[in-house]
Amino acid sequence: MDYNKIFTDINAKLSSYKDDGAVASYIPELQRVLPNKFGVHLCSVEGMNYHFGDSEEKFSIQSIVKVLSLTMAFEIEEDELWKRVGVEPSGNPFNSLVQLEYDEGIPRNPFINAGAIVIADVLVSKLKNPREDFINFVRHLSGNNQIDYCDRIAQSEKSKGHRNAALCNLMKSFGNIENNIHEVIDFYFDLCSIEMTCSELARTFLFLANYGKDPVNGNQIISSSKSKRINAVMQLCGLYDEAGEFSFKVGLPGKSGVGGGIAVVHPGKYSMVVWSPRLNKKGNSNKGMRFLEEFTSYTASSIF
Amino acid sequence: MDYNKIFTDINAKLSSYKDDGAVASYIPELQRVLPNKFGVHLCSVEGMNYHFGDSEEKFSIQSIVKVLSLTMAFEIEEDELWKRVGVEPSGNPFNSLVQLEYDEGIPRNPFINAGAIVIADVLVSKLKNPREDFINFVRHLSGNNQIDYCDRIAQSEKSKGHRNAALCNLMKSFGNIENNIHEVIDFYFDLCSIEMTCSELARTFLFLANYGKDPVNGNQIISSSKSKRINAVMQLCGLYDEAGEFSFKVGLPGKSGVGGGIAVVHPGKYSMVVWSPRLNKKGNSNKGMRFLEEFTSYTASSIF
Amino acid sequence: MDYNKIFTDINAKLSSYKDDGAVASYIPELQRVLPNKFGVHLCSVEGMNYHFGDSEEKFSIQSIVKVLSLTMAFEIEEDELWKRVGVEPSGNPFNSLVQLEYDEGIPRNPFINAGAIVIADVLVSKLKNPREDFINFVRHLSGNNQIDYCDRIAQSEKSKGHRNAALCNLMKSFGNIENNIHEVIDFYFDLCSIEMTCSELARTFLFLANYGKDPVNGNQIISSSKSKRINAVMQLCGLYDEAGEFSFKVGLPGKSGVGGGIAVVHPGKYSMVVWSPRLNKKGNSNKGMRFLEEFTSYTASSIF
Amino acid sequence: MDYNKIFTDINAKLSSYKDDGAVASYIPELQRVLPNKFGVHLCSVEGMNYHFGDSEEKFSIQSIVKVLSLTMAFEIEEDELWKRVGVEPSGNPFNSLVQLEYDEGIPRNPFINAGAIVIADVLVSKLKNPREDFINFVRHLSGNNQIDYCDRIAQSEKSKGHRNAALCNLMKSFGNIENNIHEVIDFYFDLCSIEMTCSELARTFLFLANYGKDPVNGNQIISSSKSKRINAVMQLCGLYDEAGEFSFKVGLPGKSGVGGGIAVVHPGKYSMVVWSPRLNKKGNSNKGMRFLEEFTSYTASSIF
Repeated sequence: MDYNKIFTDINAKLSSYKDDGAVASYIPELQRVLPNKFGVHLCSVEGMNYHFGDSEEKFSIQSIVKVLSLTMAFEIEEDELWKRVGVEPSGNPFNSLVQLEYDEGIPRNPFINAGAIVIADVLVSKLKNPREDFINFVRHLSGNNQIDYCDRIAQSEKSKGHRNAALCNLMKSFGNIENNIHEVIDFYFDLCSIEMTCSELARTFLFLANYGKDPVNGNQIISSSKSKRINAVMQLCGLYDEAGEFSFKVGLPGKSGVGGGIAVVHPGKYSMVVWSPRLNKKGNSNKGMRFLEEFTSYTASSIF
Repeated sequence: MDYNKIFTDINAKLSSYKDDGAVASYIPELQRVLPNKFGVHLCSVEGMNYHFGDSEEKFSIQSIVKVLSLTMAFEIEEDELWKRVGVEPSGNPFNSLVQLEYDEGIPRNPFINAGAIVIADVLVSKLKNPREDFINFVRHLSGNNQIDYCDRIAQSEKSKGHRNAALCNLMKSFGNIENNIHEVIDFYFDLCSIEMTCSELARTFLFLANYGKDPVNGNQIISSSKSKRINAVMQLCGLYDEAGEFSFKVGLPGKSGVGGGIAVVHPGKYSMVVWSPRLNKKGNSNKGMRFLEEFTSYTASSIF
Repeated sequence: MDYNKIFTDINAKLSSYKDDGAVASYIPELQRVLPNKFGVHLCSVEGMNYHFGDSEEKFSIQSIVKVLSLTMAFEIEEDELWKRVGVEPSGNPFNSLVQLEYDEGIPRNPFINAGAIVIADVLVSKLKNPREDFINFVRHLSGNNQIDYCDRIAQSEKSKGHRNAALCNLMKSFGNIENNIHEVIDFYFDLCSIEMTCSELARTFLFLANYGKDPVNGNQIISSSKSKRINAVMQLCGLYDEAGEFSFKVGLPGKSGVGGGIAVVHPGKYSMVVWSPRLNKKGNSNKGMRFLEEFTSYTASSIF
Repeated sequence: MDYNKIFTDINAKLSSYKDDGAVASYIPELQRVLPNKFGVHLCSVEGMNYHFGDSEEKFSIQSIVKVLSLTMAFEIEEDELWKRVGVEPSGNPFNSLVQLEYDEGIPRNPFINAGAIVIADVLVSKLKNPREDFINFVRHLSGNNQIDYCDRIAQSEKSKGHRNAALCNLMKSFGNIENNIHEVIDFYFDLCSIEMTCSELARTFLFLANYGKDPVNGNQIISSSKSKRINAVMQLCGLYDEAGEFSFKVGLPGKSGVGGGIAVVHPGKYSMVVWSPRLNKKGNSNKGMRFLEEFTSYTASSIF
């Protein structure tokens, strides 16, 4: 399919679309981004690349990194991992403490903040040099040694991270955090600070569109079975309490971040990243969701 | 693929499986079923049929009917429907009032009891003879004029339906039920009382495996887009608060019922029904889930 | 003390008080009342009476009756009563289902709707003619044979009672309602429909200001110990989720109703009723609370 | 009244009472206490003293201190205080995060942990030397310069304080904590570590039994109005989610601590402290509650 043309057509169709979303403002560093940026990049499993707009511009991937940290932890801690974190949608905002208290410190899934903090704790326990080892893993996935943390963003988040500290302390009180709270939280914020372009991020997610195997270089990153399971968790839990809406309208496994990015995969076909910084009330990219809905309708390529 | 052989192999593998589930006991009529019954039937979109065990025995489809009533209501009330019921997973048990109160009478999705009662209310409003019109629709889908309600089961449920009456009254207090409460609840229990065999039910679901079109007779039941959306709702909400677990392990859109049945579809490939009356603590068929997990692993046919 | 003068002084002080509350509007019958009505009546245990304003005008006592039905049920079912209803403040609105579901059908206290419905169920079980027997009990307490139900109000409520029907059905599903739901709910609405004047209602509550004994005629209505316990429940639970505020500012056991009445007692001293139909957001009389706050400050007569 | 004789009689009556409660075990320091200790001390406003058992033995007053820190903060921050903390019973366990999240960081009352942490934050903001200034205030109330913090207990709590850190971080994220979290939490644990005997603690609470004025030396500690309001908050919120039960059975304003102490006051009559380290499931002294119930029944001295 000529995805470049499709991108152009959809963009034209959406030109009259009035985006009333707002750029994430809880830290100054994120607020600085230009709100009307828009980029999209698609990597097919056959090795083709398609893109549109600001697809070569870096943005803060934020929560999208949670798919990558889950992938790494799942490899390391296959058996024990799912005793410490569930795979059910939360039905609640991404940073809710209510459910966590009710469930006695076991987060519903690895994509809400509490769950991603547990995953960070696993990596801190198991990796020799968590910060370096993780970025090396991401560089390996992306085939790009320039991918890096953004210390400015990480610092900015650390100064505002009281709610995540609340989550972490609560889990520690239930015995579900092994390491020092500050170390875990700092590492968690480092992860979220990684910056990539649409094209870099789509490339990084390509193994999940190809049953765990990087189709470019043939590396089997994870088993087919694990790849399917990570995609299933994305489908059910990847867009916070808008996962149902996203499945209903877009119909692909995906993961969003407050930087305005959304990464999706169509198993057997492609990985794709859209980026548009204005967010809706649930914290997901407004135009990003709208674009993806048009895209899967146009191409009839939802997985359902 | 030789699904008959695969069924036999998986059944052999599970022969040592100790099923500690219990048959639904809240009404005497359901409790009477033999707990060790097991049947499976698969219809491929190419028109092939595969089966194993008690696949020709009738069972109470219970909540599985909610997919069929949603299908009918979605056709009738396309635009207004989603103002009265959401598409998000609930994260709570199927008959919870908590969320319904918090969400001011709008059920999270059409597969929890409250949502299915709203769907029943829509049908009562829009159909001339709700009871006859609905069973005729099911007969049309299944190509079988013998499908019918089971009055014995319906009566038994009506005498115990206080919690569903509570849900219905609560929604009425928020203005989300249009008709008389007793009429809506009675119709709801009628729907749940339908009895089918595995083969009849798999045949009935076949249009959802074929983008809304019945591949046997070529009837376009609903549009491709609606078929995809119904499957998406099944994926996210079809197994109550075990939807995540089911997606993680089985990886197909599916819907369960307390009669022990589970219907799944693989878009573009097949529809399939398993039946085993022993339920786990979340109200889903124990062996049914286990069998499906083995089946999609064996055939590598999850959608992810 | 010259309470008549105090009433006049406080009323003068409050003359500039802007009451932005609204008359209860969920049933037309209640909405018909003139919003600026204001009456107060105090009965001292020595037999003196003091009053001000519209104290001889009938109003719908609504939930204030719950103290009287509790008194009757406590006499009949001393031992078993507290297994079916608690004595803890709810911390939630008066008609919440959330807590009731969490607590498996046992209402937190007899003054939230669910608890009062359980009390009504007890009376339906134990009284030969619940409707007549109860009004006779109230006539006995008030020394007034003219006190009666208002059928017009009761009918109006019955047509809107879906939420109370939801509560009742939910409790029935947990086994905490013995009788037919319609019979219990109808009786409950009858109770709430009783009409009295401030002076009649203050007279009726006088036994609770005198350790269970009517000081006018010397009848021991209930034991001193039970009188103290009923007052304790009023103190903790009498003003829904504003009980703390009321204790903090007024400092007396009291019970409010959506008709705009508030009955309070000062054990050993007096019973007192204020009536002003404009309600605050929590459903309690705005000016009534304000007047009582001034009164107990002025007379330094909170119990604390 | 001859309270000494009454104490002896009640103790005799309770001699056959089987106390199945358990000493608080979440920190080793508290667990070390002898479980069968029992002491009681009553100070009348006329200056008489009555006691029984281990009334001269020091114990950790724990949460009882929250009444004293509230008293001090109420004097300092009269107007602003109640914007940051409510006066409603919580209906939930003392350390619940659920309500705090729902109420956007405003604790229900000053006696649940979150509320007491806000009070600690107020004192840290307003006092020059919080630690010294507060203990001097307590020494002033008790007329005893030997009262002190127990560093051993405070240290032990600080090492286990993850849940309180979670509460504090959550409130900070809502803007309801002004100071550094560690400083506030440390001060909070210092407060809870104070040790007193029954006689010292009863003496300390005497001003609340006498409308804010210390009857021994005539010092007006706080106004009568404030004293009444603090007592009202104790009545409604002093025993966590057992406040209703305590009001129902004992009928006095009181505050408990996990060290096994309970302080009560009867306005106009007496202050009284019982101490028995075995706790019931809600964290209140088992025998302490039982003894107080017998005492107010025997002396007919509940305030209701």
